[in-house]
Amino acid sequence: MSPKVSEEHKESRQQEILEAARRVFIRKGYQAATMKDVVEESGLSRGGVYMYYGSTEEMMLALVEQIDRSNETDYDRAIGADGSVWGAIERLMDQTQQEAETVTDSLVPALIEFFINAWRSRKYDALMEERYRRGAQILEAFLQNGVDRGEFRPIVPVGAVVLMLLSFYDGLMVQAVQLGPEAAQTRVGLDTMLEALRHLLQVQDGNKEVSP
Amino acid sequence: MSPKVSEEHKESRQQEILEAARRVFIRKGYQAATMKDVVEESGLSRGGVYMYYGSTEEMMLALVEQIDRSNETDYDRAIGADGSVWGAIERLMDQTQQEAETVTDSLVPALIEFFINAWRSRKYDALMEERYRRGAQILEAFLQNGVDRGEFRPIVPVGAVVLMLLSFYDGLMVQAVQLGPEAAQTRVGLDTMLEALRHLLQVQDGNKEVSP
Repeated sequence: MSPKVSEEHKESRQQEILEAARRVFIRKGYQAATMKDVVEESGLSRGGVYMYYGSTEEMMLALVEQIDRSNETDYDRAIGADGSVWGAIERLMDQTQQEAETVTDSLVPALIEFFINAWRSRKYDALMEERYRRGAQILEAFLQNGVDRGEFRPIVPVGAVVLMLLSFYDGLMVQAVQLGPEAAQTRVGLDTMLEALRHLLQVQDGNKEVSP
Repeated sequence: MSPKVSEEHKESRQQEILEAARRVFIRKGYQAATMKDVVEESGLSRGGVYMYYGSTEEMMLALVEQIDRSNETDYDRAIGADGSVWGAIERLMDQTQQEAETVTDSLVPALIEFFINAWRSRKYDALMEERYRRGAQILEAFLQNGVDRGEFRPIVPVGAVVLMLLSFYDGLMVQAVQLGPEAAQTRVGLDTMLEALRHLLQVQDGNKEVSP
């Protein structure tokens, strides 16, 4: 009889393996990473890893799920004591700049690599659409909050601003990976986008709408 | 003595191989593509391919060079009979939408995959920076042309608009690959960006600056 594995033990072991997988993906990228790499990185036995994950693909999908869960609360956290949505947007831009500066120490390059090929198999179409739909929904609710509070009087639908912002964010990360954030001048891009948002959202605070 | 290969013959053979490589990269992506795939796709002998290219990496770099050369004239071509830079921007947005709609039949997914991993080796840092610098320079000269003609009175430096635009463009393509252009709603993102540009550049034609 195999020893009974408690749920708690199982979860902590899984998390340990996922952390090892994360380190391997960061170091080697997604396609270049092998199960052997993860086994070695984890310090566990081959069987101990395969008991929970049968492939690097399964590990990547588990990591994606964790990331998505933690991202959902980012916007709420960005709202400061004054409750200003525009203030939160400015803070999120700062946070994005920090993400860009450390992007090659993060899972982002491996994620982009994973998803840029995922469409070929069509296996993840539903997952990708759902992630995107959910991400857009949360950002839209966040901006709509600013409208409801009277902070913004947008000249285009808030949903359209969201679509532009999501493309911009993805591209900023791609360029930060490829060039480094300094050569990509991500801070300049972010500040220009802030200026564009001030106009599109018509931020109502007199100090924040810069007249030409 | 091996037969003398004329320069013309050599170039047409190279082009034939690169076209085969392009088809393989489009179908399989960059890392999954092998020399064997390209040999088979080209219908040439193994030796006939290796005479010109020693690896799929060499082929990808040759394709990148060709793409960059052809992109450089895009902006000039977009300027219509009236010579309006803003009109050209609108046409370039339409062209971008078309690119997005056919992106998975293009080399773009393989290019993103190639460059998203290239930073790991550091081998292509100079190439990537030079490509980016050159791309930004051409777009900046194009927008500056609009300033010089009195079409635009930008409220931020034209170079800053360029940085924002390049990130947006890259992200739009990433999303078009991952989701398809319909689910990514690329047209909505492009129209929102046009609205942002109208403001940032302060387009001087009375019909084009939309007041809130």
